Amino acid sequence: MESAFKTIAVIGKYMNPEIREQILMLADFLTTHQVGVLVEVTTAQQSDIQGYPIADMSTIGSQAHLAIVVGGDGTMLSVARSLVDYNIPLVGINRGRFGFLTDLSSDSMLSCLENILAGKYTLEQRMLLSADIRRFGEVIDSGRALNDVVVNKSGGVRLIELEVYIDGQFVYRQRSDGLILATPTGTTAYSLSAGGPILHPTLNAIAMVPICPHTLSNRPIAINGSSHVEITLIHAEDARVHFDGQMQVSLQQGDTVVVQRAENSVTLLHPEGHSHYGMLRDKLRWG
Amino acid sequence: MESAFKTIAVIGKYMNPEIREQILMLADFLTTHQVGVLVEVTTAQQSDIQGYPIADMSTIGSQAHLAIVVGGDGTMLSVARSLVDYNIPLVGINRGRFGFLTDLSSDSMLSCLENILAGKYTLEQRMLLSADIRRFGEVIDSGRALNDVVVNKSGGVRLIELEVYIDGQFVYRQRSDGLILATPTGTTAYSLSAGGPILHPTLNAIAMVPICPHTLSNRPIAINGSSHVEITLIHAEDARVHFDGQMQVSLQQGDTVVVQRAENSVTLLHPEGHSHYGMLRDKLRWG
Amino acid sequence: MESAFKTIAVIGKYMNPEIREQILMLADFLTTHQVGVLVEVTTAQQSDIQGYPIADMSTIGSQAHLAIVVGGDGTMLSVARSLVDYNIPLVGINRGRFGFLTDLSSDSMLSCLENILAGKYTLEQRMLLSADIRRFGEVIDSGRALNDVVVNKSGGVRLIELEVYIDGQFVYRQRSDGLILATPTGTTAYSLSAGGPILHPTLNAIAMVPICPHTLSNRPIAINGSSHVEITLIHAEDARVHFDGQMQVSLQQGDTVVVQRAENSVTLLHPEGHSHYGMLRDKLRWG
Amino acid sequence: MESAFKTIAVIGKYMNPEIREQILMLADFLTTHQVGVLVEVTTAQQSDIQGYPIADMSTIGSQAHLAIVVGGDGTMLSVARSLVDYNIPLVGINRGRFGFLTDLSSDSMLSCLENILAGKYTLEQRMLLSADIRRFGEVIDSGRALNDVVVNKSGGVRLIELEVYIDGQFVYRQRSDGLILATPTGTTAYSLSAGGPILHPTLNAIAMVPICPHTLSNRPIAINGSSHVEITLIHAEDARVHFDGQMQVSLQQGDTVVVQRAENSVTLLHPEGHSHYGMLRDKLRWG
Repeated sequence: MESAFKTIAVIGKYMNPEIREQILMLADFLTTHQVGVLVEVTTAQQSDIQGYPIADMSTIGSQAHLAIVVGGDGTMLSVARSLVDYNIPLVGINRGRFGFLTDLSSDSMLSCLENILAGKYTLEQRMLLSADIRRFGEVIDSGRALNDVVVNKSGGVRLIELEVYIDGQFVYRQRSDGLILATPTGTTAYSLSAGGPILHPTLNAIAMVPICPHTLSNRPIAINGSSHVEITLIHAEDARVHFDGQMQVSLQQGDTVVVQRAENSVTLLHPEGHSHYGMLRDKLRWG
Repeated sequence: MESAFKTIAVIGKYMNPEIREQILMLADFLTTHQVGVLVEVTTAQQSDIQGYPIADMSTIGSQAHLAIVVGGDGTMLSVARSLVDYNIPLVGINRGRFGFLTDLSSDSMLSCLENILAGKYTLEQRMLLSADIRRFGEVIDSGRALNDVVVNKSGGVRLIELEVYIDGQFVYRQRSDGLILATPTGTTAYSLSAGGPILHPTLNAIAMVPICPHTLSNRPIAINGSSHVEITLIHAEDARVHFDGQMQVSLQQGDTVVVQRAENSVTLLHPEGHSHYGMLRDKLRWG
Repeated sequence: MESAFKTIAVIGKYMNPEIREQILMLADFLTTHQVGVLVEVTTAQQSDIQGYPIADMSTIGSQAHLAIVVGGDGTMLSVARSLVDYNIPLVGINRGRFGFLTDLSSDSMLSCLENILAGKYTLEQRMLLSADIRRFGEVIDSGRALNDVVVNKSGGVRLIELEVYIDGQFVYRQRSDGLILATPTGTTAYSLSAGGPILHPTLNAIAMVPICPHTLSNRPIAINGSSHVEITLIHAEDARVHFDGQMQVSLQQGDTVVVQRAENSVTLLHPEGHSHYGMLRDKLRWG
Repeated sequence: MESAFKTIAVIGKYMNPEIREQILMLADFLTTHQVGVLVEVTTAQQSDIQGYPIADMSTIGSQAHLAIVVGGDGTMLSVARSLVDYNIPLVGINRGRFGFLTDLSSDSMLSCLENILAGKYTLEQRMLLSADIRRFGEVIDSGRALNDVVVNKSGGVRLIELEVYIDGQFVYRQRSDGLILATPTGTTAYSLSAGGPILHPTLNAIAMVPICPHTLSNRPIAINGSSHVEITLIHAEDARVHFDGQMQVSLQQGDTVVVQRAENSVTLLHPEGHSHYGMLRDKLRWG
């Protein structure tokens, strides 16, 4: 039986000689299995991959049926934001120990892929957040995040003061190091270090987690995924908003960051038998 | 305009002379407003209320269009469990400072009720949990909770050991003082003291919060409200399961507590302008 | 050179066939090294040890120069409380992975002891707590603890209410699951699970850690080791005080538990090169 | 009886017309009570105070017997660092609600001072921290802190990586937002927001509190006040060290911050009847 994934993209952004070998191995494996291969253009350049069709992200989005991402959770976050508007599932292959988002290990990737091509997998939707930055009533910048949108102090600032409204209702004025809005996916990342709860990925919810809040009862809250959150910077000499800890925008006093669930979700492909609780148990060493 | 609430029940379980006056005031007010009054039977007995129709809970459930509960959050929990299978909204009048569940203060109750009779209110669904206790394959007892189902150590036991499965998937074996499963409503009660997150009441989610877990990374998790949770007592000389901290059942080693969202929800009536965030801000002193 | 430890006691309380072999191996090793051996009486009975002098705890306290404890942290706690009034150092040999208090592993115990007999070790003092339980002005019971004195709810009680005075000054009235008073040694045990800080063993300090306190700002406090702490049970149908989680006394409403640093400390012997931070790093998996 | 405080300095750094009136009231009160007054030079300039001797901090340190500080905790921190090498007690008068360090309220300051002049007070020593910043083996800068020395990320950095040694022993490598070293005084400030314990001011201890650590078991530790702490910046594009959140120094990768208890302590004067637990109860709203 032929795989449903007629064309598969391979993406691996690190400049790393070992990545090169791994990508060639993947491409060869897919070709042998009669699957069309697209190698992402930066990947091809950085790893000097030749002999396979090269494609940019939008081409991958429109032509590939699956994207294999070689790298860590950071690479997955970046690829997910790039491909979220295309209907293409992602599967991650970790370099080393598997991550929260990269299900496959390098050691067993080929046998796992064999199973995936044979249709042994599950698909899972993961929500993203979308944020607009408003200054004097105009949107001056915007971004999306699979893990988290974080408004925090920067430079040598001692703390910032924020005012939060949800769905038009005043929530609180908060003095803190900052505020994290995390998707369920992001609740095992920075949000967890800041004392936030783990949210199961099936929840349509956003974790709102203050970072070192001055008021001790300002505890983490999980709000509805359909909420419209407005965070206004009341007082700060220096503050920023971060997307997945990978991009950032400087904020001025009075700026408002408006956060909502993004329109589109990303699809993760998991190998058969994948258990979210098993992954948590392993990564958080509950054993 | 006539109120949609043609018959209203009044419930106030405390044996308290002040409660008596308040209930009489309410009943008189409702009568004056052409609303039928039912006084709950225990309430009538304990407060020596005469001159109004007396009704038990099932009669209230089938005949009243609204139940006014005079007391604290504890009374609301108890009434909610009793009336959850009837389609009747509840509104709470607090004796003193208002609670998480009792929106109206004694001072302003009549003017608030005036507005409510005039149709100025909102309705909100709150989920309950349902739990079965299984011993040697048979259900030996069961219960429901609007706040939380808690499995914890009892007597002089040092800790208990639990094994948790969700939707058939192994989650962890845990040594702790116990485990809290809280509805969104319950996340501002015991769960919060144990380090759990606040879940907004619109979430279809259950907070699973370990009490003093031996493994530090056993952090609170919010799982989907449709989850089927099985908690098996692996090791304990003495343990119990509690429902809203108001009823309890002794457990034996090997017993399994199966927790799910209850089929029916309870409806809370809030006065116009009620804000859940405002209530949190007030009760948790975020100001 | 002859060891300073002319007579060494061997204590290992588990009824366990493997313990027997280990104890015989130790006794033989010590005899070979011209060290007098005393086998603790219960140990000898339970493990059927013959051919060595048998001694009870008080004889060990007065005649031995070192006690080797075979078991886990629980055994060390119990032996420490028994021998604290004698000036005799303890060293623990763990069955399996070493514990917070048992420095030596079973695998390498003989080579470690060789070094210890050669004088390669350090000694460390560890404070204990002493508690009196007062009812109607009289001391009705008392106890000591190397880890912690815990006043907590018992049975099916929902919470207890305590009033705490330190050095005659009112601290707070607290509604909670209970209150932990931990020595620095105890701060890596139950206290840590309840959210308490780690106190370095050189500190003359007591960690006062509320268990699931109703008031969120009731955070852990480290008080001076010379403090006189009075905990009065204001309201509880069922409460107890625990010593190292190994002994307990039932409390009645109105009872006061008076906790102070015990007059005597216990001496732990560590192998050369022992690092408290290294132990924490290993046990708490900081690596 | 004449007061022991023959000369008293008045310090109030805010540019604030109300402060001016208050300082004049204090100076007049002290003059009336035959006490010599020194007004701190910046205070005099900013508040346009005339008719009293003006003095800089070193003159105040050598000539005054008590310094009255008008302002909040921030002003107290700054004055304490300036006067720590002089043997002069400080008492704070708060503008508004009293702070952790400012015992007297503006409303009752004169009657309180009357008592203080009459000898009704207690004195308390508070330790400070001293830190050197070493680059390529040389001390490039240094600072002192009454509350805390904080090494943290700056700019848009996601996290920093630190390596910590205490008394020459390796503690851990830590990825986090930063690390707080707090005196007992500082444990009710930023350290508390980051999850640190409260340390009683009589403890000779330093709280070491990681800020949002990546490893969940990296819990707060209280170490001995005599400890020598070395924090080396292993990896960060942008990091800083802060003293009481009031001064800061930029750090480069490889820099080491060496923190120890400062040689001198500051003396706080408390009105008779002052209770540290009462202050905590009030400020943290334990009531």
